[in-house]
Amino acid sequence: MTVLVAAQQAGTTGILPSLQARLACRNGMASSTAGVAPGFVQGNLAIIPAKYAGDFHRFCQLNPKPCPIIGMSDVGNPRIPALGADLDIRTDVPRYRVWRDGEVVDEPTDVMKHWRDDLVTFVLGCSFSFEEALLDEGMPIRHIECNVRVPMYRTNIACSPAGPFAGPMVVSMRPFEPADAIRAVQITSRYPAVHGAPVHLGHPNLIGIKDIAKPDYGDPVPVADDEIPVFWACGVTPQSVINAAKLPFAITHSPGLMLVTDLKNRSMAVI
Amino acid sequence: MTVLVAAQQAGTTGILPSLQARLACRNGMASSTAGVAPGFVQGNLAIIPAKYAGDFHRFCQLNPKPCPIIGMSDVGNPRIPALGADLDIRTDVPRYRVWRDGEVVDEPTDVMKHWRDDLVTFVLGCSFSFEEALLDEGMPIRHIECNVRVPMYRTNIACSPAGPFAGPMVVSMRPFEPADAIRAVQITSRYPAVHGAPVHLGHPNLIGIKDIAKPDYGDPVPVADDEIPVFWACGVTPQSVINAAKLPFAITHSPGLMLVTDLKNRSMAVI
Repeated sequence: MTVLVAAQQAGTTGILPSLQARLACRNGMASSTAGVAPGFVQGNLAIIPAKYAGDFHRFCQLNPKPCPIIGMSDVGNPRIPALGADLDIRTDVPRYRVWRDGEVVDEPTDVMKHWRDDLVTFVLGCSFSFEEALLDEGMPIRHIECNVRVPMYRTNIACSPAGPFAGPMVVSMRPFEPADAIRAVQITSRYPAVHGAPVHLGHPNLIGIKDIAKPDYGDPVPVADDEIPVFWACGVTPQSVINAAKLPFAITHSPGLMLVTDLKNRSMAVI
Repeated sequence: MTVLVAAQQAGTTGILPSLQARLACRNGMASSTAGVAPGFVQGNLAIIPAKYAGDFHRFCQLNPKPCPIIGMSDVGNPRIPALGADLDIRTDVPRYRVWRDGEVVDEPTDVMKHWRDDLVTFVLGCSFSFEEALLDEGMPIRHIECNVRVPMYRTNIACSPAGPFAGPMVVSMRPFEPADAIRAVQITSRYPAVHGAPVHLGHPNLIGIKDIAKPDYGDPVPVADDEIPVFWACGVTPQSVINAAKLPFAITHSPGLMLVTDLKNRSMAVI
């Protein structure tokens, strides 16, 4: 489908902001997608050789909170029409990570030269969607207020293993006053395809977090004495698992630099 | 409607367990209704002179979490057909409290001799309904495990006032492990007519509770170090408010000895 056709489908003389974002990526845009194309779903990316794709698919099935699948390609096909008009997964993400034997060996802005006919793409829901829902309800989000990345932690919560894929769940943390924590549970429960309800609140040590001020990924944020730290399953989990599995080859996005899809965040609400 | 007609409406040769409970009350049953007629909604009772009923109705409207109205009578009419076949509010509650000038002056098993033509009955949802929903999902409820009354506390959360009715919200507390606390928020959010989602969790001092081991009503229960105390708005609030308003006359139920209605708990779920 051409860009023009996509624009016509959008029903405007312009084109969808999500498609604009992907076109910008194709033209070299390589920065964070936080705040890009408001209202549109962004996704975590995992591109896995077909040999391992069945196990990875089962891993996602067994661990839907950290790994909620919102789109998937056919083997070797770089397109996922359900997620976007004109979408080409090889070029439409700002920056990629190419993994060999569990290590990042390249961080290119497209993966044309790495593409293979045996690759299967998984797109997983991302917390940007539920954060938009929280913001829409007037909820304060600390790391956005602080203009830093969300703090993320490896936990002692074991994911259910599948083939070579195993390891601890990674969680993101947002502090709230108690009444807001309750509201945050309600709001995010409506969005199971983008991590859904929290997995924990209140006692970081119980899930193996020794020091809330020292996240394993992202940046620390202050938690006030009258607040509750609330923890959601995080889309960084599959990268941690791909690393631990020492997969011969895989491609992911670079954290925070996500795939922008044509799905609407509000369409992810189940009630 | 006769008992026979009610039984026929129930579509069985027997009669509804809820009607059986009310008939037992009429015949002098005066013990706790905890566990009575499983599956049927029980209600808190507030019978208010018409002169104050408008204000009380508005108080409930303004404070739906502690005072969710599930039934209401016409002035002077002791029947509430929507809540039960053959229901007579003067006889069908195990034990009543008769209030004069804010003090309990009588605790009879019927209020025939106290009845007046200017009385309006309000029936308010009760936590037994959401506790049943929690138990159905396998959630442990501490005070039930301990076989004591739920601990309740006066808070520093001010109800919105209406006429003479004003005062702090009373809350009930149930401790849960963190993941169960999240689940409890989800489950009880489905039941806004029976207090709904919690109003607070995790920091008792923030809502004016100095010592969780010393409830203002009910009995203390243990809270483990790895648990979160979760607080729900409580149907004792109106009794506390009627007391503070020093109303010349009112009738309530005796705490824990509730009106058993023909409504089904599961019908209270909004999703």
